[in-house]
Amino acid sequence: MIKEIANHRSIRKYKSTPIDEETLSDMLHSAVRASTCGNMQLYSLVVTLDPHVRAELAPCHFNQPMVTEAPCVVTVCADIHRFTKWCEQRDADPAYDNFEWFLNAATDALLAAENLALAAEAHGLGICFLGTTLYTARDICRILQLPKGVIPLTTIVVGHPAEHPERTDRLPLDAVVHYDRYKDYTDAEIDELWAEKEASSETLELLKANDLPNLAQIFTKNRYRREDNIAISRAYFELLREQGFFND
Amino acid sequence: MIKEIANHRSIRKYKSTPIDEETLSDMLHSAVRASTCGNMQLYSLVVTLDPHVRAELAPCHFNQPMVTEAPCVVTVCADIHRFTKWCEQRDADPAYDNFEWFLNAATDALLAAENLALAAEAHGLGICFLGTTLYTARDICRILQLPKGVIPLTTIVVGHPAEHPERTDRLPLDAVVHYDRYKDYTDAEIDELWAEKEASSETLELLKANDLPNLAQIFTKNRYRREDNIAISRAYFELLREQGFFND
Repeated sequence: MIKEIANHRSIRKYKSTPIDEETLSDMLHSAVRASTCGNMQLYSLVVTLDPHVRAELAPCHFNQPMVTEAPCVVTVCADIHRFTKWCEQRDADPAYDNFEWFLNAATDALLAAENLALAAEAHGLGICFLGTTLYTARDICRILQLPKGVIPLTTIVVGHPAEHPERTDRLPLDAVVHYDRYKDYTDAEIDELWAEKEASSETLELLKANDLPNLAQIFTKNRYRREDNIAISRAYFELLREQGFFND
Repeated sequence: MIKEIANHRSIRKYKSTPIDEETLSDMLHSAVRASTCGNMQLYSLVVTLDPHVRAELAPCHFNQPMVTEAPCVVTVCADIHRFTKWCEQRDADPAYDNFEWFLNAATDALLAAENLALAAEAHGLGICFLGTTLYTARDICRILQLPKGVIPLTTIVVGHPAEHPERTDRLPLDAVVHYDRYKDYTDAEIDELWAEKEASSETLELLKANDLPNLAQIFTKNRYRREDNIAISRAYFELLREQGFFND
């Protein structure tokens, strides 16, 4: 297995040591080598090094210390703006302000993001993807001055690790892989696929700490609750319209 | 640079030689090592090896020969179904049938997809992402028997390359990278960023072949036309609702 893929873990504690220029350059050049729809490169990478701007971004990521402690925060954005502007300057009629092209742009952006993460790890750096990006996308747009046609998808914190956590577990491969066609799960198969995770010492500690009868309820009652999910969905969808990805 | 990232190119011609089991296993294990939101692994990889099923999929990808010639076609899907079923079996109240969780699932799926692609390349295989997946997602759902809560995002063709194309060009790095905040482009900057691409011999040949005055119009008039973009957007969005990602 490619060693960066095998050794990947999310790092949440960082030294403040800056990333040297060559390493950053390699990360960014790695990102743009990813496959891209029609070679259109419909994404932008906002590389925030300035500690003042990172401090502005911190509340968007629930003030997790890594956003200010790590030297580099990359906000990964779908971007139809640049390509559209080019078309307009060439008397071409662009029509990328719609849901299909949001998805094409997001695909481009996320493949590039994974390359960037692996490239950082190849240089001994640690990374963490921040899902909070979707929750507070409107604030991120404002802080990073994203024009119409640009919307944040995820954020990658990058820096020198100040911790070395264990790799996290995964469901058995059978859980996510289907051969030829999708084979739906029986109740017994679901039980079996989650058995090891549910019996782990980590889970048993979580149950005690959360005073809940099972791991699934930790997800639904504590981590990702119905009312939050619905509020985030609506807010992001509204922002998607406002940023001009739903003009059809 | 990680050598698989540096050497990546899309391969469109394949030998029919099967992928050996160990290699396939490494690809799939590599995929699941990618970062995943809350360690929920909200995706499924449908690995279609059966030539009959690949033949059924071929029209979904405009009958590009690689879909039947290459030995392996991986349909990468957002999947909230498996996690939701687990929650229901644990008397937990899942609320992942909404747009936020489509995006979280898509992020998980696409990071895993890039790992899978790089892992395949590390074994000397070639890959190609098929954007046609979004155009014909409804047919793919039917053929692969995807239940509610599962929707295809992209497809990766994998096999032994029967061609060795040049790496494709990219815009200058400055086009996609912004430091600290987004810096919008002046008209002159757009001209400059596209100058090399527009002057390339490849572009000049395309202009002759398409009888059009510039590259931008090849995109807007021939490759990705307004009426198609709008039809695809609407169809995919409708499917997203039907597959249960918009229940709020």
